[in-house]
Order: sequence, then C-alpha cells, then structure tokens
Amino acid sequence: MTISENDKVLSIDNMNPLIRNVEYAVRGRLAIRAEEIRSDLEKGQSSYPFKRVVNCNIGNPQQLNQNPITFFRQVASLCDHPDLLKEENRALVSQLYPSDAIERASCLLRSIGSVGAYSHSQGVPFIRQTVAKFIEERDGYPADPNHIFLTQGASSGVQSLLSLLTENEKTGIMIPIPQYPLYSASLALYGARPVPYHLEEETGWSLDVTQLVDIVREARENGTDVRALVIINPGNPTGQCLTASNMQEIITFCYEQRLMLLADEVYQANIYTDTRSFISFKKALKDHPEPAARDGLELVSFHSISKGMIGECGRRGGYFECVHLDPDVLDQLYKMSSVSLCPNLHGQIMVDLMCNPPRPGDVSYPSYKAEVDAIYSSLRRRSKKLEQVFNRLEGVTCQPAQGSMYLFPQVSLPARVTEIAKEHKMAPDAYYAHAMLEATGVCVVPGSGFGQKDNTWHFRSTFLPEEDLFDQFCNDLEKFHIQFLKDHRDEQ
Amino acid sequence: MTISENDKVLSIDNMNPLIRNVEYAVRGRLAIRAEEIRSDLEKGQSSYPFKRVVNCNIGNPQQLNQNPITFFRQVASLCDHPDLLKEENRALVSQLYPSDAIERASCLLRSIGSVGAYSHSQGVPFIRQTVAKFIEERDGYPADPNHIFLTQGASSGVQSLLSLLTENEKTGIMIPIPQYPLYSASLALYGARPVPYHLEEETGWSLDVTQLVDIVREARENGTDVRALVIINPGNPTGQCLTASNMQEIITFCYEQRLMLLADEVYQANIYTDTRSFISFKKALKDHPEPAARDGLELVSFHSISKGMIGECGRRGGYFECVHLDPDVLDQLYKMSSVSLCPNLHGQIMVDLMCNPPRPGDVSYPSYKAEVDAIYSSLRRRSKKLEQVFNRLEGVTCQPAQGSMYLFPQVSLPARVTEIAKEHKMAPDAYYAHAMLEATGVCVVPGSGFGQKDNTWHFRSTFLPEEDLFDQFCNDLEKFHIQFLKDHRDEQ
Repeated sequence: MTISENDKVLSIDNMNPLIRNVEYAVRGRLAIRAEEIRSDLEKGQSSYPFKRVVNCNIGNPQQLNQNPITFFRQVASLCDHPDLLKEENRALVSQLYPSDAIERASCLLRSIGSVGAYSHSQGVPFIRQTVAKFIEERDGYPADPNHIFLTQGASSGVQSLLSLLTENEKTGIMIPIPQYPLYSASLALYGARPVPYHLEEETGWSLDVTQLVDIVREARENGTDVRALVIINPGNPTGQCLTASNMQEIITFCYEQRLMLLADEVYQANIYTDTRSFISFKKALKDHPEPAARDGLELVSFHSISKGMIGECGRRGGYFECVHLDPDVLDQLYKMSSVSLCPNLHGQIMVDLMCNPPRPGDVSYPSYKAEVDAIYSSLRRRSKKLEQVFNRLEGVTCQPAQGSMYLFPQVSLPARVTEIAKEHKMAPDAYYAHAMLEATGVCVVPGSGFGQKDNTWHFRSTFLPEEDLFDQFCNDLEKFHIQFLKDHRDEQ
Repeated sequence: MTISENDKVLSIDNMNPLIRNVEYAVRGRLAIRAEEIRSDLEKGQSSYPFKRVVNCNIGNPQQLNQNPITFFRQVASLCDHPDLLKEENRALVSQLYPSDAIERASCLLRSIGSVGAYSHSQGVPFIRQTVAKFIEERDGYPADPNHIFLTQGASSGVQSLLSLLTENEKTGIMIPIPQYPLYSASLALYGARPVPYHLEEETGWSLDVTQLVDIVREARENGTDVRALVIINPGNPTGQCLTASNMQEIITFCYEQRLMLLADEVYQANIYTDTRSFISFKKALKDHPEPAARDGLELVSFHSISKGMIGECGRRGGYFECVHLDPDVLDQLYKMSSVSLCPNLHGQIMVDLMCNPPRPGDVSYPSYKAEVDAIYSSLRRRSKKLEQVFNRLEGVTCQPAQGSMYLFPQVSLPARVTEIAKEHKMAPDAYYAHAMLEATGVCVVPGSGFGQKDNTWHFRSTFLPEEDLFDQFCNDLEKFHIQFLKDHRDEQ
C-alpha cells in the first residue's frame, strides 16, 4: 500500500464534518489576505496604495497601540520574577515599582505559590473570591466563589456551556442575528441547532421580546429542543445596550419558556451613552418581581479581561458565574475544567486586577484613574466620529454606538456589485470589504459573517485605530467608499 | 410553569452525554478530597496525622517548590512591563536584569508588539520560526514554521487533533494501556472509539509491535475505522523511553496500516538513564529506510513548556508540528485556532525561551546551565530513590524510571482489600490510594485511572516532592504501606 500526496489518511473529505462546517468570519478569508499583505509590507513590497494594514476586524486594542494599564502590568511583572520581591532588591525595586504594586504582587503570590504551577482547575480560590466581591459590589447581591469558573478568555467559557447544553442534534440555542460568530461556530462544532432571533436595526438594534415566543414555539413544533437563549449585552457587532425593563421581559420570557439564559457581558465597561448604563443580568434577575423566576432561572454570565479599558486580549483571561445551576451540572463543569488542567495564571492574575483595581487612597489610584479615563474618553470620541463619518456616506446608515468596540453600518450596494460579487462567489458585502482592504489596508468583517436580514448588507468595524491617525483613517474610508460607488455605479 | 430545585432546565440526565461519560482520574475524586483536606489544614484543623498535602497526582513541579529558570522569568517580567526597557530606567534595570534578558525581551516585543494583544491564531510567526530552528537543531532535519501551531499546553493540541480525526462514532484511535487519561477522556468527549494496545510491564513497559497488527485487523473487522496511533514517549504514566529500532518498527506499522502517528513527546528532556536517549519521531521518520514511509507518513508531534526542567505548567504553553498533513487539513486546524483567537502570549514567550535558551558565551548561560543541571540531577536522584523504596515494599514491583516525571509501581493487594473496596464501590487500587491520602497526605492516582491488565493494581506517583523532604516522604509511604498490609492481611 502506498500513501501518495493525494491519498492522505486524513483529508478534508473524511475529517470531522462538524469542524468542516464551522465558519468564523472574524479571522476568515479576508483576515488571511490582510496577513499576507502585512507580510508583503514588512518585506518592503511597495505595490500597495497604503503603508500599513489596520485590523478593524477584531477588537484588539493593544495591537493598535492602546497602552496597557500600568499598575496591572507592574503587578504581573513582579509575579513573573519573584526575586524582585526579595529584601536585597527592595531598594532598587522600590524606585521602579510603586509600593501598592509590590504589596499586591506579594499578596497574589502568597495565594498562588508560583505563576508556573497549575492552579485549582476552576481557578485560584483567592481570585474567585475577588471576583465574587466584584460582582457583589457591582450588583448589590452576593456571589458564590464556588459557582465562578475562571477561563482562558470568555470564548472558552461560552464553548464549555454550549457543549454541555448539547444533548443531541435536536438541541436548540436561541442566538441573536446579527451575532458574534463564536456562537454559530460553536453550535456547528457541537452539532446543535441555532434558533435565530432578530435585533431591530431601525430602533438601534433593540430586542423585541414579542417575536421570541413565536420563534420558540415554532422551533419546538418542528422538533427542536430549545434550551437556552444567548444575549450579548452590550451588543456585538451591534453595540446596543439593553434597558432594565427590556431585561425584565427577557427574564420573564426565559423563565416561562424554561430556557437557560447565557449573558455575554464582556463589554460591560464599554458604554458610550449618558442615557443608558450597564445592568448585569445577575442584578436584573435578583431585582425581578416574580419570586419563582428570581430564585429559579438558570443564568450564566461571561466576562473577560480582553475588553473594557484593559484590552488584555493576548493573555486569555475571563470568568463565568453560574446562578441557579444544578449542583451536578457544576460538578460536570469542574470535571471538564480539570481535563484542561487550569486556565493560564497570567490570565487569572489579570482577572484579579480587573475585579480589584486600585482604590481611592492607594498610591497608584491617581495614575490608574487617569489612564482608564483617558482610554474611555478616547474610545467614546472615536466611536462618535466614526459613526458620523459612516452616516454621511452615500447609501450608508449607522446606528449610534451605545457600547462595545464596534459599529455595524448598513450599506446599500448597487445591483452591479451583487452581480460582480456573485461571479467572485462572494457575498456583496464581502466583495465590498475585500475592495476596502485592497484600497486602504483597512480590514473589516462583512455583515454576512454575523447574519443580517435578507438583502441588507453591513460590515463591522472597530473604532480602535489610534486617535492621532483617526482622521486619516476616516478619510481613507470615505475616499474608498466614494470611489467604490463611482466604479460600481449601476448603468442608468 | 414553575422551575423547582429538582426541575432544572439542564440536569445531569439531559446534558451532553459525551461529557457525562468523560472520566479524568488525575484530578478526580481523590484529588477533590485532597483539596478538601488542604483547605481544612489551612483553616488550622489539626485532626489529620500530617501537616501538609503532597500532590503527587500531577506533574506540577513548581507547586512543590521547584524553582523556575531565572532567565526565562526575567525575560517574561520585562515583556510584561515594557516601561522597564525605556532609556530613563536603563541604569536601575541593568542592576536587576542581565543584559541578555533585556536584549531578548526587546527582541520579543519587537515581534509581538504587546503581550496584551491577540497574535496570529497559529502563534506569533517569529516564535514559530524559533520552534522550527529548535526542531532542526535537535533532529538535523528542517521544519516548516507554517506547519507548527502554538497551543495552550500540549493538551489542547492533542484535543484539536483527536477532534479533527473523529469523523463519526466508528472512528478508532489506538492508545496505549496504561495511558495518560487525557486520551481516553478526549475520545469519550468526541465520541470516538479507543482501540487499546498494551505496554509490557515485565520488559520495562516496552512496546511489542507484533501485537499491533492483530489489534488493528480485529478492530477493522469489527467495523472500527482505525485512523491513528498515539504514542507517549517517554511514557506517561510508565516512564519508558523507546529505542530507535522500536520506533522504526512503529513507523513501518503505521505506514503500512494507513495510520496517522500522534507522538506525545512532552517529556523529551526528562530522561534519567545513560543507556537510552530521546529520539523524536520526526527524526526517526526522516531516518526511515523506506522512502514511501519517510515521505508519506502523517505525523503530529506535541511538546510543552510544562515539563522538562522548565515546569511552567501554569502558563499553558506548547506547540505541535505537523508533518505530511494534507494542506486542506492544516487550513482546518488554522480555522479552529482562529475560533479560540490565539494561544496566550505568556505561554508563547516561554515556548520561544524553551526552544532558544541562553547559549555558551551569553551572560546568563552559566547560571542557566547550573539551574537546569541542578534540577535534572535532583529529578534523577529522586526517581532512583523512590524506585528503590517501592521495590523494597512487600508485594510491590516497580520498573526503572527511564524518563518522564512518574513511577507506576504494581501492588499486590490482599483479597480482603478487593472485598472492602467493592463495598465502597471503588477499584482496589483506588481504595489503597484513598487510604494513603488519609494516612500520609500524599495524593497519587490509582492505576485504574490509566488502564491496566486485568487483576493487576498500580498507582502513579510523581517523584517531585522537595529533595530535603524526600526521605521523610519515602518514609511516610513505607510506613503507610506496612500498616495498610497489616490492617488488611487476609485471614489464614
């Protein structure tokens, strides 16, 4: 028997078909092309009409030079090199590090031992206590450290829950459209059915609960075992922020329909409007007037160090809190955490710092506060500016950025674009986004990667490019759009 | 409708049955009991006949106070806090950090940007180049950085491959017995069939290739689509190290039987015998006399920063190299990496350091060399000492520790133990291990967690307790064993 180049044991045709079916646009074909161009530019190739690739396809603030929070990095740096905490180095180290960073690192290392050791699979107990206190301070209701799981970013937590929920191919999970494609990708991977509901673009991507009852009934009539509802709040890619009354309706709906509520709350610190503030689903649940719902609804809430003003995506840290889950199910979550041994310790440390940052009176508080405020105001300014740019482009409408790191404008594309895109075997918005990349170096994600109403086209862009380059970035997008329409104008 | 405490949406009965079936003994019931005891001891409870819990159930060197490699931590610490690399801090920092650590951190940050940013999903390209050079230096054959995937520890890489290989419930993967239970757990999770082969305890856990042909034929006759063979070399839990000729036989077997070879080589630096040295399967393959096998066999090799003399388990870093895999399959691996965004950057940095440590002539080389040598000699001494202790216990035989971090002694247990264990719904070796924990605070893993020949009983213990406490540790085990036999002697 011979194995030829074309006769592999494992091929695309006989591999796990669930993996083959997974689609993930955020780092899909367009992002791969962006990487190629970046590599060409690094090698000095100058045939492109721009000097750098700007990755607006992914919320990756530090890649676009957002500074990390200094205090957080000081603590992490000391935990990495505990020799610095020895008495003989104290004189030098105290000139480089503030006293509260030294204290915090010492305190963390007392609980952790070493950042090079496996921790408890659910996360360092001390850090889970910090998270519980953070939740209690935020919501005014207690949290149980034993119901908190530290994770390698929110994504891995979401995947754990979706996998656990999937009993068989009839299991259905309600997801918003548009949605962050982690959800559709994971449901494809586990062989569960997405049960989509729509957000209403015209009213700022609001959630109309009345549609949900029909959707769940219809799905169940068709044999789908609908078990959970996913909400992303603030929204991704849509940026909207839910109101308290809307949240109460959602909780009532989930409770009455026997659905677990999965609340993706990773953008909870990214709110750019004065009229709405973030409310956690944990608080909304505990505020709910109906005791049976309040004390019964199964809720899992996800949070992350990757977003907010921290932006430490590369460390892969996060947590989820389980509320009212069956204790046997919690044991199963622990078992699965233990197969992966533990979440990385650097991510865990950053969760501790996010949940317990410097407080007024601490040596590092003034600089911490100044850094966070500066990042926040800049994100807010950039979100407004980009929203205005989009709204003045011909055929483009963009809902206000209430939160998150994204705008999701709708683009009317000439009929000719649809035809040409078809020839290229692309969705029209993917064709538009490819043209944008080749013309400007800006990489966005086509709306087709998130789901959208039929015959509407969108794209998702972060507003993370550096503030001193932001006007140029906006100009580039505007010029591209005008030229694109000119090049693809329908014949009269 | 009301949701009562006993009427959850998600319960053990309706959850993902594949997850329910997963077993993972390394952090199972015994390890959970060890955590309880540790927590009791921390609270000052003194009813136990020992003062601390010693986790020999898991290869977690730094938890048992093995020092990290100073140079590696210095570089990581500087990458975490790049302000230290600024000109104004140079005078102070150069008193705390050696010049080569400063240079290396600067070099890494030039490639990475920030450790807080998502990297390329497959891992930072620069670090994959370092890995490729390491493989080439080790084996004398080139490696392609585009075929290397950085991972969050070897476990996540192993899971990616096993998941990808699983087409349906007939997919079969050959795994050794005894095996590290990551393999059986992952196959249960993905719904594939384990196809076990046995290692031969009497001949030092050697692999007799002649059995494999019968096993694969029989499995295929029974409708199992056998696709891959897993080898752990050096062995876990068994510690054996394969010979070059044995490896050639295995390659021939895999090639002839159309199997992908998955080589778990995470203990490649942990060899404690002078008569055998580690050979990678990549080298063995490229040395193979048969050109068709040499140029065709699909091989994936896994490595990790968690073992060796580094022991940085808590950072979750590792890589796998794909050899001769279908390019379309590599694309699918990339796609799945992208759904998880990227492996954490601190793990990636440590992979870089592992693969490119200080070299002779570098400022840090003498201290690096001294630290690695000291850890190595100590591991070697402790492995021999524990092996001798086990072999002098009544009814215990222990194969020599050729490699890895474990010993896997066989224990003859009195018939009475089997009866009592049955009453406790435990395997006899689990009962023995529970008794050991309650008597000594030492936590090991029963052989039943790894698989073993019928009616033989084993346990896996690391030899990682600190050298200055090691005699005490050995004495505790010996006293326990004698007392256990006395307490459970069969009546004459």
